[in-house]
Amino acid sequence: MNKKRTILFLLLLISIPLFSSEIQTDTHNITHKMTMLVFQLGIIIFFAKFFGRFLAKLGMPSVLGELIAGIFIGPHFLGGIPFLGFTEGLFPLVHGNVPVTTELWAISVLASIVLLFHAGLETDLNLFMRYSLKGAVVGISGVIFSFIGGVWFAMTFMKLTFMDPVTLFLGVLSIATSVGITARILSEQRKVDSPEGVTILAAAVIDDVLGIIILAIILGIVSVLSSGEANAQIDWNAIGFIAFKAIGVWLGVTALGLIFASKISSFLKLFKDKVNIAVAGLALALIFAGIFESAGLALIIGAYVLGLSLSKTDISFVIQDAIHPIAEFIIPIFFAVMGMMVDIHILFSKEVLFLGFIYGIIAIFTKLLACGIPSLFLNFNMLGALRIGVGMIPRGEVALIIAGIGVGDGILNSEIFGIAVLMTLLSTISPPPILTKLLQNPKKGTKKEIKGSNSISTKFDFPTGTLTDLAVDKIVTALTGEGFFSHKMEIEGDKIYQLRKDNIFFTLFHFYKTVEIISDKEDLVFVKTIVYEALLALNQSIKKLQDMAKPEEMKKDILESNSESRKNYSLLKSALNPDTIRLSLNSEKKSDILEEIVDILYENGDITNRDEVLKEVIEREKLMSTGLQNGIAIPHCKTDSVSSIKTVVALCRDGVDFDSLDGLPTRIIVFIVSPKSNPGPHIQFLSAIGTILNNKHSLLEILDSKTPVGVRDTILGKA
Amino acid sequence: MNKKRTILFLLLLISIPLFSSEIQTDTHNITHKMTMLVFQLGIIIFFAKFFGRFLAKLGMPSVLGELIAGIFIGPHFLGGIPFLGFTEGLFPLVHGNVPVTTELWAISVLASIVLLFHAGLETDLNLFMRYSLKGAVVGISGVIFSFIGGVWFAMTFMKLTFMDPVTLFLGVLSIATSVGITARILSEQRKVDSPEGVTILAAAVIDDVLGIIILAIILGIVSVLSSGEANAQIDWNAIGFIAFKAIGVWLGVTALGLIFASKISSFLKLFKDKVNIAVAGLALALIFAGIFESAGLALIIGAYVLGLSLSKTDISFVIQDAIHPIAEFIIPIFFAVMGMMVDIHILFSKEVLFLGFIYGIIAIFTKLLACGIPSLFLNFNMLGALRIGVGMIPRGEVALIIAGIGVGDGILNSEIFGIAVLMTLLSTISPPPILTKLLQNPKKGTKKEIKGSNSISTKFDFPTGTLTDLAVDKIVTALTGEGFFSHKMEIEGDKIYQLRKDNIFFTLFHFYKTVEIISDKEDLVFVKTIVYEALLALNQSIKKLQDMAKPEEMKKDILESNSESRKNYSLLKSALNPDTIRLSLNSEKKSDILEEIVDILYENGDITNRDEVLKEVIEREKLMSTGLQNGIAIPHCKTDSVSSIKTVVALCRDGVDFDSLDGLPTRIIVFIVSPKSNPGPHIQFLSAIGTILNNKHSLLEILDSKTPVGVRDTILGKA
Repeated sequence: MNKKRTILFLLLLISIPLFSSEIQTDTHNITHKMTMLVFQLGIIIFFAKFFGRFLAKLGMPSVLGELIAGIFIGPHFLGGIPFLGFTEGLFPLVHGNVPVTTELWAISVLASIVLLFHAGLETDLNLFMRYSLKGAVVGISGVIFSFIGGVWFAMTFMKLTFMDPVTLFLGVLSIATSVGITARILSEQRKVDSPEGVTILAAAVIDDVLGIIILAIILGIVSVLSSGEANAQIDWNAIGFIAFKAIGVWLGVTALGLIFASKISSFLKLFKDKVNIAVAGLALALIFAGIFESAGLALIIGAYVLGLSLSKTDISFVIQDAIHPIAEFIIPIFFAVMGMMVDIHILFSKEVLFLGFIYGIIAIFTKLLACGIPSLFLNFNMLGALRIGVGMIPRGEVALIIAGIGVGDGILNSEIFGIAVLMTLLSTISPPPILTKLLQNPKKGTKKEIKGSNSISTKFDFPTGTLTDLAVDKIVTALTGEGFFSHKMEIEGDKIYQLRKDNIFFTLFHFYKTVEIISDKEDLVFVKTIVYEALLALNQSIKKLQDMAKPEEMKKDILESNSESRKNYSLLKSALNPDTIRLSLNSEKKSDILEEIVDILYENGDITNRDEVLKEVIEREKLMSTGLQNGIAIPHCKTDSVSSIKTVVALCRDGVDFDSLDGLPTRIIVFIVSPKSNPGPHIQFLSAIGTILNNKHSLLEILDSKTPVGVRDTILGKA
Repeated sequence: MNKKRTILFLLLLISIPLFSSEIQTDTHNITHKMTMLVFQLGIIIFFAKFFGRFLAKLGMPSVLGELIAGIFIGPHFLGGIPFLGFTEGLFPLVHGNVPVTTELWAISVLASIVLLFHAGLETDLNLFMRYSLKGAVVGISGVIFSFIGGVWFAMTFMKLTFMDPVTLFLGVLSIATSVGITARILSEQRKVDSPEGVTILAAAVIDDVLGIIILAIILGIVSVLSSGEANAQIDWNAIGFIAFKAIGVWLGVTALGLIFASKISSFLKLFKDKVNIAVAGLALALIFAGIFESAGLALIIGAYVLGLSLSKTDISFVIQDAIHPIAEFIIPIFFAVMGMMVDIHILFSKEVLFLGFIYGIIAIFTKLLACGIPSLFLNFNMLGALRIGVGMIPRGEVALIIAGIGVGDGILNSEIFGIAVLMTLLSTISPPPILTKLLQNPKKGTKKEIKGSNSISTKFDFPTGTLTDLAVDKIVTALTGEGFFSHKMEIEGDKIYQLRKDNIFFTLFHFYKTVEIISDKEDLVFVKTIVYEALLALNQSIKKLQDMAKPEEMKKDILESNSESRKNYSLLKSALNPDTIRLSLNSEKKSDILEEIVDILYENGDITNRDEVLKEVIEREKLMSTGLQNGIAIPHCKTDSVSSIKTVVALCRDGVDFDSLDGLPTRIIVFIVSPKSNPGPHIQFLSAIGTILNNKHSLLEILDSKTPVGVRDTILGKA
């Protein structure tokens, strides 16, 4: 019903253009261009998010969904079909290197910069280089052989020469592992901290870095190749020089960036608040990107290098956090635009399907073997080697970005782009189920038992998400204070920290309200001590807050400042019911009294769930007694078992013990219940009745009343 | 020194392109376009943020700084000058309606949509319509007369006819008040809740809404005017129809939006997390924008209408929060691009300067009089009327956006745009100092004392910013639960909530760690009760956390799980110093012992500030005693008065009372001090020594040692 009305509403909206001025098709008019652009962006985001979410539910990376959404709504498919006022479709085919408008392309280029800047920030090369020699070996082997595999594919199946730009691109395209999907599966199976998990994650980092360096070299070489004439001899000297220059620029700037990281960080900190530091960081990434592109490399390389340089600084997390909404907005646009570049007719041509399949198979097996076989020599058994090999297979974002660069530069045509997309799809879709199975196997993946590898999990549950954030922050700060390196990953909202110092290694999982730390048994005392001390420190600051709310002074203060208070007559009148006013009570103990007054409401049919209300009101009394000075008590609670405010007034002329503030006996008890979901004037009633009762004279008059109606009228008379 | 090196580094970077492939100037090459774009965006953000911050420091709106940055680096000034490899400058002049590339323009158009969507979300029309009739009167009067003023200016000084599109634009341009700067001054002077403050803020809301409606009508009319031939008769029927249609579309969609607001909100909530809900909201805003533009209105009107529709829903704050980083990134680009459209040669021509000055003066006085004079009849005295009049003068973002639309549509030329910018500058720069002076005048601005207008301020200080956020969240939720309307404003990081129900009105200021609530004296009890209950609720959840950290079980648990623990020999060796090991102590009371062991370090020259260390260690003991089971105690603290970890080991063979967990006397005390800023292996030492001492056999051996060196060696022997 609701959904139908929503859809109706959206249809109504969409139909407005039909009744109005025709949508112009003069593509040179800037206003028209902008109108098209906003429609396109709006539609892209909805479709990309929808398809992305759908694929994520199937356990696939959402990136693939965004890509497929782009294929679907792009100029080669639905987007090219005339629709309402769009005479050439919502995404008219643009002829040129890219089939979309330069404005849309520009936004997807920005997105690729945001993506790579973020990827750079996430990298902590030091951590991995220092602690995972195995990862480095596996990563490097994977890079070399998948490059060779891609080149071999181009030369054998496409009959290209080695020095053809397309060959080189197909080589470099198949390098970078997309670690996101593997990391998520490792996390689901609690294997992030296993020897295989650590090796895969480290290898993928190495892999990214090497992929970017090789891309830099290839782009340099390609620029020489494309400037020369087709049949001219290859000038090896020029190529050597260019390759040398590309590595030089990359290494030089990265080294400079790392050396000056703290300077750059202090410069960005001049922008004061978190968000502005992040925005300034992004602006610097844009400038780095421009510089690298001008130097004949690629925009994304510059963004990545800046991210990498800043990854070790204290603003790395700050920038990652603040960039998150920008990334969520812009990155799906990038992948959808990549999808739009796929010509579906070409994709489904026999040749492309065949070549894409072959390329995909080669890409899968090169990684599987090139990463798996070395693992056998690194103390992994067959199972461990398989886990590592399969975990390294997925390509994804980086492959698509590189393919996009190739198309933008006019090096790759639609056929080759389609082949590259098919390879990405194949290599990303196939590993997840296999990897899950492999990880579910309870056997160890290592040959010799590694000393101390018998890890232990310590779990902490927190009452709220915010408090968990606070606690994790304290724990991680304490650990970095102890000299630990910390590497943070975020997988679908869960945060995973890898913390390492010398030979001590923890993994901290931070789910919504749970913190789980996995450590060696040896380090259990240390882990517990650090959590204990972090929680103590947290308590120290919370205690100050408690001191503000707890003390009796505040309660007294409230009642003493009531001289001129608002006494809401109509509210009191509507809430006070003579049927639930009692001139005396049977019970004398506080707990019995609470039960008795709840029963009064229950018997009057005001509440449906007696026990729940009783539980709630007892809970509230535990927090802090509602027995105030001068013989009054106002127990109260919220429950969904009432639909509007309900009250009981009970007189105890002889006085009962209600844990009152001043220790004096309590003579008037006003009990208030309000609905939880829609509490209404709960506290207004609370303060109005408190104000009236706090006047000693009124109190005596109320106690003198002879009938329930009399009690009510005396109270109302004071309002 | 640091700054010099940073600059050097940036210069080095910038110079890379010099040594590399020349930057192409073929503007049709898509790669080249993208390279230019990223350079442009990076540079724009830095300059816009820098100038914006600078003007904010002078008490001016940062928007002006961003505008000026744009003028400065735009194609008409610095940006047009050849620079390094940029042969036509970094911002080559583009000929057409706008002087920048369509890609850059596209991003600024996106920014204007984000801005207006956000403005719509911030608006709570209901709140203001219900509670501020005065605001409505002042706002409407201001709108009418400033429109007339603008039109009169065009007809008198520019000799244009009434039905000239430029005349209509100059009319609509001068309507919208930019409330940001006024709100900030009101907040600084604690006058947000004054009758004048409330009236200004309400009037500005009315003003925005009417401005948008009038813009819609004018755009409709202009579309008819520009399609007709220059000398043809004005077709009043067509114009009437168009105006009617514009109002119809506006009203119709707004009404539909408000009616279906909760449906739209549930639709957006399908996107699960905060950021994705916001991104989906923004995508819908883009589609609304496109629809409105297609219907002959303007992009920004659609975005504003969607924002307005969602303003009352529960996702309004969620979207506003998550959009913040996107806005901080993209909006400065918009204002800078507006600045780039200013041709500085035209701006400084005599004619433009003269006309801009006249237009500015007219814009200032129309608002001053049209808002001030009605105030005199609304129970404000001359001072109050002046405050309101001056507070309503600033134009700003909306004027610039409308002028930008005029230029984009080819209706306004550079001269008129320059005149509009001068008007904005004049009207925005002049009021702040005057308004500040007027508000500092302690006299009341109202004629008759309004009943209950003697407000009172209640202040709460919290220990940390995060806890303040939590508390404010609880308080505002409790108030909306009581049926209050809440309107949130954010001014330079401070948050201001206006909370209103019937005749009760609060203002809640949320600064970093402070909450200040301004209310009528009558409502003080209510305010205090609500804060008290909110803090109690907060405590309830925090208590659960405390229960986790506090209990002795955790401490015991830590010591009992130590069987296989890591005993770091080298760490122990470096931290244990025979010079600070004592075989007996003089004191017997815990406080004296703490003093004595701190003195041992002090006398040994290990710490410089005895009193501070003593204070810290006592603080830590208050949190939870460090006296453990089996006769050991490990007092410890962090201080900046040591540069590396320092320890004292003291034996008390007869045992002392150290509040130990098991109540038994304490025989070995190990005191640990670490530097605060660089704590190093503090907790590692703590857990290593705790592990060793927890072994009863080791304990006895240590107690048997005859010399300090013996004590150390016995401990090390166990590691």
